[in-house]
Amino acid sequence: MKPFMDHNFLLHTETARKLYHQFASPLPIVDYHCHINPEEIAIDRTFENITQVWLGSDHYKWRLMRSNGVEEAYITGDAPDREKFQKYAQTLEKAIGNPLFHWSHLELQRFFGFQGILNSKTADAVWNMCNEKLSRGKMSVRSLIKQSHVSLLCTTDDPADDLRYHQMLKEDPSFDVQILPTWRPDGAMNLERPDYLDYLKKLSAISCVEIKTFQDLKRALSIRMNAFHSMGCKICDHGMDYVMYQPASKEEAEAIFARRLSGEALTEAEILKFKTVFMIFSAQKYKEYNWVMQLHFGCRRDNNRAMFQKLGPDTGFDCISDFTPISQLAGFLDALSTKEILPKTILYSLNPGDDEKIAALAGCFQDPEAIGKVQHGSAWWFNDNKTGMIRQMTSLANFGLLGNFIGMLTDSRSFLSYSRHEYFRRILCSLIGDWVENGEYPNDMENLKTIVKDISYNNTVRYFEFDLDTV
Amino acid sequence: MKPFMDHNFLLHTETARKLYHQFASPLPIVDYHCHINPEEIAIDRTFENITQVWLGSDHYKWRLMRSNGVEEAYITGDAPDREKFQKYAQTLEKAIGNPLFHWSHLELQRFFGFQGILNSKTADAVWNMCNEKLSRGKMSVRSLIKQSHVSLLCTTDDPADDLRYHQMLKEDPSFDVQILPTWRPDGAMNLERPDYLDYLKKLSAISCVEIKTFQDLKRALSIRMNAFHSMGCKICDHGMDYVMYQPASKEEAEAIFARRLSGEALTEAEILKFKTVFMIFSAQKYKEYNWVMQLHFGCRRDNNRAMFQKLGPDTGFDCISDFTPISQLAGFLDALSTKEILPKTILYSLNPGDDEKIAALAGCFQDPEAIGKVQHGSAWWFNDNKTGMIRQMTSLANFGLLGNFIGMLTDSRSFLSYSRHEYFRRILCSLIGDWVENGEYPNDMENLKTIVKDISYNNTVRYFEFDLDTV
Amino acid sequence: MKPFMDHNFLLHTETARKLYHQFASPLPIVDYHCHINPEEIAIDRTFENITQVWLGSDHYKWRLMRSNGVEEAYITGDAPDREKFQKYAQTLEKAIGNPLFHWSHLELQRFFGFQGILNSKTADAVWNMCNEKLSRGKMSVRSLIKQSHVSLLCTTDDPADDLRYHQMLKEDPSFDVQILPTWRPDGAMNLERPDYLDYLKKLSAISCVEIKTFQDLKRALSIRMNAFHSMGCKICDHGMDYVMYQPASKEEAEAIFARRLSGEALTEAEILKFKTVFMIFSAQKYKEYNWVMQLHFGCRRDNNRAMFQKLGPDTGFDCISDFTPISQLAGFLDALSTKEILPKTILYSLNPGDDEKIAALAGCFQDPEAIGKVQHGSAWWFNDNKTGMIRQMTSLANFGLLGNFIGMLTDSRSFLSYSRHEYFRRILCSLIGDWVENGEYPNDMENLKTIVKDISYNNTVRYFEFDLDTV
Repeated sequence: MKPFMDHNFLLHTETARKLYHQFASPLPIVDYHCHINPEEIAIDRTFENITQVWLGSDHYKWRLMRSNGVEEAYITGDAPDREKFQKYAQTLEKAIGNPLFHWSHLELQRFFGFQGILNSKTADAVWNMCNEKLSRGKMSVRSLIKQSHVSLLCTTDDPADDLRYHQMLKEDPSFDVQILPTWRPDGAMNLERPDYLDYLKKLSAISCVEIKTFQDLKRALSIRMNAFHSMGCKICDHGMDYVMYQPASKEEAEAIFARRLSGEALTEAEILKFKTVFMIFSAQKYKEYNWVMQLHFGCRRDNNRAMFQKLGPDTGFDCISDFTPISQLAGFLDALSTKEILPKTILYSLNPGDDEKIAALAGCFQDPEAIGKVQHGSAWWFNDNKTGMIRQMTSLANFGLLGNFIGMLTDSRSFLSYSRHEYFRRILCSLIGDWVENGEYPNDMENLKTIVKDISYNNTVRYFEFDLDTV
Repeated sequence: MKPFMDHNFLLHTETARKLYHQFASPLPIVDYHCHINPEEIAIDRTFENITQVWLGSDHYKWRLMRSNGVEEAYITGDAPDREKFQKYAQTLEKAIGNPLFHWSHLELQRFFGFQGILNSKTADAVWNMCNEKLSRGKMSVRSLIKQSHVSLLCTTDDPADDLRYHQMLKEDPSFDVQILPTWRPDGAMNLERPDYLDYLKKLSAISCVEIKTFQDLKRALSIRMNAFHSMGCKICDHGMDYVMYQPASKEEAEAIFARRLSGEALTEAEILKFKTVFMIFSAQKYKEYNWVMQLHFGCRRDNNRAMFQKLGPDTGFDCISDFTPISQLAGFLDALSTKEILPKTILYSLNPGDDEKIAALAGCFQDPEAIGKVQHGSAWWFNDNKTGMIRQMTSLANFGLLGNFIGMLTDSRSFLSYSRHEYFRRILCSLIGDWVENGEYPNDMENLKTIVKDISYNNTVRYFEFDLDTV
Repeated sequence: MKPFMDHNFLLHTETARKLYHQFASPLPIVDYHCHINPEEIAIDRTFENITQVWLGSDHYKWRLMRSNGVEEAYITGDAPDREKFQKYAQTLEKAIGNPLFHWSHLELQRFFGFQGILNSKTADAVWNMCNEKLSRGKMSVRSLIKQSHVSLLCTTDDPADDLRYHQMLKEDPSFDVQILPTWRPDGAMNLERPDYLDYLKKLSAISCVEIKTFQDLKRALSIRMNAFHSMGCKICDHGMDYVMYQPASKEEAEAIFARRLSGEALTEAEILKFKTVFMIFSAQKYKEYNWVMQLHFGCRRDNNRAMFQKLGPDTGFDCISDFTPISQLAGFLDALSTKEILPKTILYSLNPGDDEKIAALAGCFQDPEAIGKVQHGSAWWFNDNKTGMIRQMTSLANFGLLGNFIGMLTDSRSFLSYSRHEYFRRILCSLIGDWVENGEYPNDMENLKTIVKDISYNNTVRYFEFDLDTV
């Protein structure tokens, strides 16, 4: 029996251990997509206790606690932090097979040196131990990032954001990790939202463009793109129910936009047409800037209206959508390709049943312009677990070139989540180790070293063209 | 090489063996959902031969024999029982990897003490041995249930059923296994069926409510629910193509019902609206009675019309539907949740591709009112095999709390099917054993014991609030 | 660690090794579905170099090279063959886990005796070695087929094809492998295509039927079917986006056909109706001829319009469709079954998520007329890899009788692809070996021998009723 989560956690073969410890483990981390708040890096936030770090904004953990019948007071409510922590520790006792069980223990091991098991009995000792370390002040946001060996990270930012914290960080010589913004213009696209006009006001204010037409909106966005670009932005991100493709003319889009501004109700078809035109405009700009376009789809959000009214979005009430038509996604990519404005693109679906469909589709839009130009992104959100990662990488290997995969990101709101890169690298090395030891791939250490280092780090640097050296 | 289906069948690790033999195996069985005929328990039916027990009403076995080119005479026809048995034994020779191969041998081992292999050569000996045991009369329905260590079972009953056999069983002090009815009102909901008006007559008769309006129907159902409740009913069950959500007012539902009564044809939209209103009414009542709502969906029934005309429904001609829109299921659950009438709910889809979608959705409607209030039900029907169970439990573990899973049911028409609980428990222990021995979960026997006993028995007792002790 | 792809490649248990080496490996091959050009067999084509054999028309390899950023000149363009080969060798360095890595090395081992690893460093030596063998002239098409122990193969042919090469082969006593045509009437069915009228002219010419009505078309097709039949045809094949079922009368079909001939545009509904009627006509004929009907669906073709305009179809720009409604497929099969014109049928979907749905549906239309009358076909195209095969066979075993599976085909355009049968047989034996050694199936060598030989060869001979002996 292997010991629980020791040095060789998830590494079941000699080859896997060699690949991980010699090649993958020492590499720095590029976290090219996360939801960290740049302000907290700029001000180098510190934490009072482990509940603040762990349960402050992590809707993964909230969901799990709700599944254990925990009262909302102990989740997002005003129960004392110590009691919230106890409820989480109790919940872990039921969480066999859940990635949070692994993530939580990896984080306790790596950041707090705790090698034991967190449960209701040990919670008190763990609480004291963690808080003692946190209070010594060595665990500020910046120190956590440095300690995790992060060389670059990309936050997720709204076009209307003034990027002041990115500016501060850029001007701060005392912190040498690159912190880049990511362009996420969902607010500017989702014109069906009730607060859309308020959003446009904010965008008008920051871009100094009065937005009265779709043309104005595009001008405002172009100005903000330029600002993002000057701050080092290399990537954009779109969160969509599904990737729609309902082509329409610019004139139609203008008319729809005008109707929205005048307060008229739009049909579903109009909304889809506007968004399609918006996306094509956006892609063209991304192509100009050589930005990578991330498309996240297959999520059905805010399913529990009662809880949404209490807590708002991103609080643990989202699920997987089963409407992700490949025909529209294919049509959209083909339209961009035909117009020669298809940027480098990463596709992520929350529906694991889409894995093979995405992998097959990506193979239709490759181009010498970039190796692996259209990528199937790493297992996302609910699928970010051992099963989902193995499934995504196996699909990718079967349908294309695993060796060109750009690998892991945290997609996280937490500063302790960098251990998910470790989790991914262990699973990657384990998968490869199995193939090698089963005689399904040559035991050629030079080639294996290249593959492991590329997927763990170098492919990311090359694909996004970050200002970093490959290693 | 492990011996074929011995004591340690499916238990590949020391941990799995310990968990199964020490904790899971000795536990009694709660079979909270099956299709056993309560009359056969009440009259304590006996069987003349193994063909009657095995092939009398088991459409799983019928399908398999048809796939082997067996003539219908030997399946549902009038060929002699001995010859039917021979055909089934021959079919098993091709059934490598099929759960029926395992179930059949488990049943022969546990109920008849036969440790060999059933095939065309051994069929004669097995036939004689089984029939000899059956004829000795020790294998009546009640003795099979007792021998299987069943403490409670729930049959599946129509609102128009008079529950006379449940009444007999309740009054019979000689049999101490709890036999409870389950409310299955499909007949009252499916107003598109040609025989709907006949059904209403039966329901009128037993409820003493003349059904002329939807309001009357609801009154009649309420009266019957009360009767089911007084007979100990704790659960209801709905079989649906998919969980629809087409909200409509009570007035609309009344108008649709009136049109149906007057013999007019209904549109598909009207049918869906009526059913949605019906389901919301039902859920509200279930919530009042604290009944658990089971939703079985994703089945496309009676695909072969020629065979349907000969044999009727439930004879082995059903398949998996791929239209199970999560948006409507989510809308339905949210409507109930918003109205605060969401009962405890178990979701089962026949489409294994729905596993992750259901697991993610269930996480959106948890509530301190019951631990694991919305559950993803055990792998159902076609998926009730090793692959399907591992898939369902892995998905459940990845997306939620496996430790709160309510576990196995037989869903069977046969009195020998209790060995499917053994099959499930072995697979559960094997899955957990792998995690523990791979260092992915702590080797903490107290915690593992709790998890195994909870999933095998205690969670069921707690969730349904049966009048049973946890063990 | 197992050596890379040695004698026991993919055979991880003693039982697997025994089953493969003793029973599966010595069997001849029936390749009942491929896309080989019969002319090349008739003229016994030889090859100048390995690039011609490997990269001449293999869009699997083309896709892979594009995913590695290779310029089109080195793929389908006019770069020198030696340089194209180099690019492919480089691509393989990234192809860990891809079936092409295995297929390429299997082909180098079996046909060229090369036991090493092909990569950018070894490419030169491999190039010279292969070409030397090719130039010695021993590697003509016929010798490759004979060397691969093929006893029968079925090409894929258009009704308008004159079958002259099949005629030549039939009359050539020097080559004893049966080469049979397959009826693939997509061109006659797809009336939405711009070149449909040109196609009808070709069909008119060869059938000597002037096609002015749908009735004429059916007459022309009947004449050609007879010609195919007399040339030994036993199988037909249909490539469809999805299996549609939109019933219409013959009169409607005639009217739609007439509108098409007059140059009018057809609606989507009309197209589907015409095709449904076409398919029902076809099935009836297949039933008369006792031909097996293959339905390939779930493919979305030619997704990249720019590349389509440059290279045409079947050049590596297809993907998986997610619109494969089971309700229509079930409706179609039921319509045939009700009319008693359902021929033996093999279902293949490109969507691996359809595996369980197909397996369950197939079970609804079995019939004593043929064992395993409706079959779930072997993992197709993108799924033709270890993962996909195991998935398909596991699904088949869980839902039906694996022992009646008709097994592997190459679906290939290449004369080296017969090693895919070896690949399949190894995976089959490995899967069975695991079950046996885990105690999940009896270690009864006689039964296992029958199963392995049946799936590898005999079931195919029996199902298609080829003029071959079982072995």
